[in-house]
Amino acid sequence: MIERRIASIDLPSRPAGLYEPVRYALEGGGKRLRPLLAVQACLACGGTADEAMPAALALEMFHNFTLVHDDIMDRSDVRRGRPSAAARFGSNQAILSGDAMLTFASCLVSQVPARAVAEVTAVFNDMALRVYEGQQLDTEFETRKNVTIDEYFEMIGLKTGALLSAACRIGAIIGDADPATADALAEYGMELGLAFQLRDDWLDTFGDHATFGKPIGGDIVNEKETWMLITARRESHGELDSILAEDLEPQEKIRQVTRLYERLRVGERCDAAAAEHHALAIAALDHAKFSDESLKQFFVDVVDRMASRNI
Amino acid sequence: MIERRIASIDLPSRPAGLYEPVRYALEGGGKRLRPLLAVQACLACGGTADEAMPAALALEMFHNFTLVHDDIMDRSDVRRGRPSAAARFGSNQAILSGDAMLTFASCLVSQVPARAVAEVTAVFNDMALRVYEGQQLDTEFETRKNVTIDEYFEMIGLKTGALLSAACRIGAIIGDADPATADALAEYGMELGLAFQLRDDWLDTFGDHATFGKPIGGDIVNEKETWMLITARRESHGELDSILAEDLEPQEKIRQVTRLYERLRVGERCDAAAAEHHALAIAALDHAKFSDESLKQFFVDVVDRMASRNI
Repeated sequence: MIERRIASIDLPSRPAGLYEPVRYALEGGGKRLRPLLAVQACLACGGTADEAMPAALALEMFHNFTLVHDDIMDRSDVRRGRPSAAARFGSNQAILSGDAMLTFASCLVSQVPARAVAEVTAVFNDMALRVYEGQQLDTEFETRKNVTIDEYFEMIGLKTGALLSAACRIGAIIGDADPATADALAEYGMELGLAFQLRDDWLDTFGDHATFGKPIGGDIVNEKETWMLITARRESHGELDSILAEDLEPQEKIRQVTRLYERLRVGERCDAAAAEHHALAIAALDHAKFSDESLKQFFVDVVDRMASRNI
Repeated sequence: MIERRIASIDLPSRPAGLYEPVRYALEGGGKRLRPLLAVQACLACGGTADEAMPAALALEMFHNFTLVHDDIMDRSDVRRGRPSAAARFGSNQAILSGDAMLTFASCLVSQVPARAVAEVTAVFNDMALRVYEGQQLDTEFETRKNVTIDEYFEMIGLKTGALLSAACRIGAIIGDADPATADALAEYGMELGLAFQLRDDWLDTFGDHATFGKPIGGDIVNEKETWMLITARRESHGELDSILAEDLEPQEKIRQVTRLYERLRVGERCDAAAAEHHALAIAALDHAKFSDESLKQFFVDVVDRMASRNI
């Protein structure tokens, strides 16, 4: 249903140069996790899917907007197995069409049920700023070698957690949830986001190339400050820094760092950290009041699917 | 008062890398015409300056956001006599901080008086899309040699007129104007915008270097599709195209095209076209009902100042 509603979002047709990239970015697929969480959170609190739909689409529009702009900043040519919008249409076009997506997201937010519009708008805009802050910290980490685990969690909480958390909270608000339930679902979304990012980082090194869709080891080549890199740096008595200081070929660099990760068991421990946040997500659900207890199962299933995902 | 309120917009301080460029862009000065129009339109309809202020600041925030992103796309290093945000902080930072400005604009829009928030939000988001559409057309014109005068007016109506028009309409809505007055003030803003852009294009060729703040003749060097260039192409029986086809030094190109403009009197006629739209702006005021007739004078004065401006 969400896929169909995304396809039927009413975009102007002209000028085509502005709106074609918007359509392209939205049609790229993806898990549609954010709109799904919003709709299910609304249902869980007694609302309807139709009531949640404008907000659900706003969240998906916003998410894709961030991907369009991130791919310019990161010079990423590939997104979901296709050329990124920046690669396909040029970075100037991706800037402008991305701006239009952010404005469309605001338009969609303004279409939520009138009784909820003020609160949803506030949560949405606050979330957007957090996502930018997370992206900013992520960028700043690129030129630092002393990022702490706390800073890493702050960054992924902003960059990844805030949007999943807001999706749950917004759905709950539209479903007219009591504040404790809205908080509980928001906490669920945050923990899910933290676990999601830990799993993502783990897959980047230990995933299966055939299913992951990106080359394995990109984070190591780029020396990205992940849970595993930060932990390995702290525990390897300078060995990680020695490897990174060498002028190694990418494949050799990946091989040596992966071997170090294996020796220090940081892969398993990263996976365990993800599992811990998955458990916290499940635990948060205990504080939510579901209009029908069977609606809780969706949120449990999402965690199970995320925990075992290979893509 | 507007300047003071802009300076006191409550921006987060951290991460500084994200918010410092926002502050920088806002502090660059400028005429503050858009917030002024919104406040005065609100006063003209019987509202207060305080009621109009969040929307006024949203409009100024939005305007500066478009400049930040435009300067990336146009690779403009200078804005208002200082380095552009893109030049000062890099284009990646300018993308992200610009995004934050657009979200801040939405935050400010949500703070208008509750009775007006739905209508103001709709006008604001609709305006934003028009501005992007205008920017898109402007970009597309760069690779075309057959732009018509009608297309030119469509483009400047979107890129420049829509924002001034929305500033007036939003002020009127907040001042609780009757629909005819809101329409009249919106029309005033649109005509003011068209005249503003015509004057801007004229100044680019015939302005005084000492006061204009940009090098004279930039539009000619870039073969920008302005009212003057389009008119000269249409009336010069191929002479304009011949000049542009030559591989001339910039100063020589400016000299030859300016001489052609003088021969065809397109400079005076562009100025006359601006005057015509100034007159239409004044005429539109006749259809507005002012809460106090003396408040009309501000709008007349703006036109007079714009008509004679050299910067």
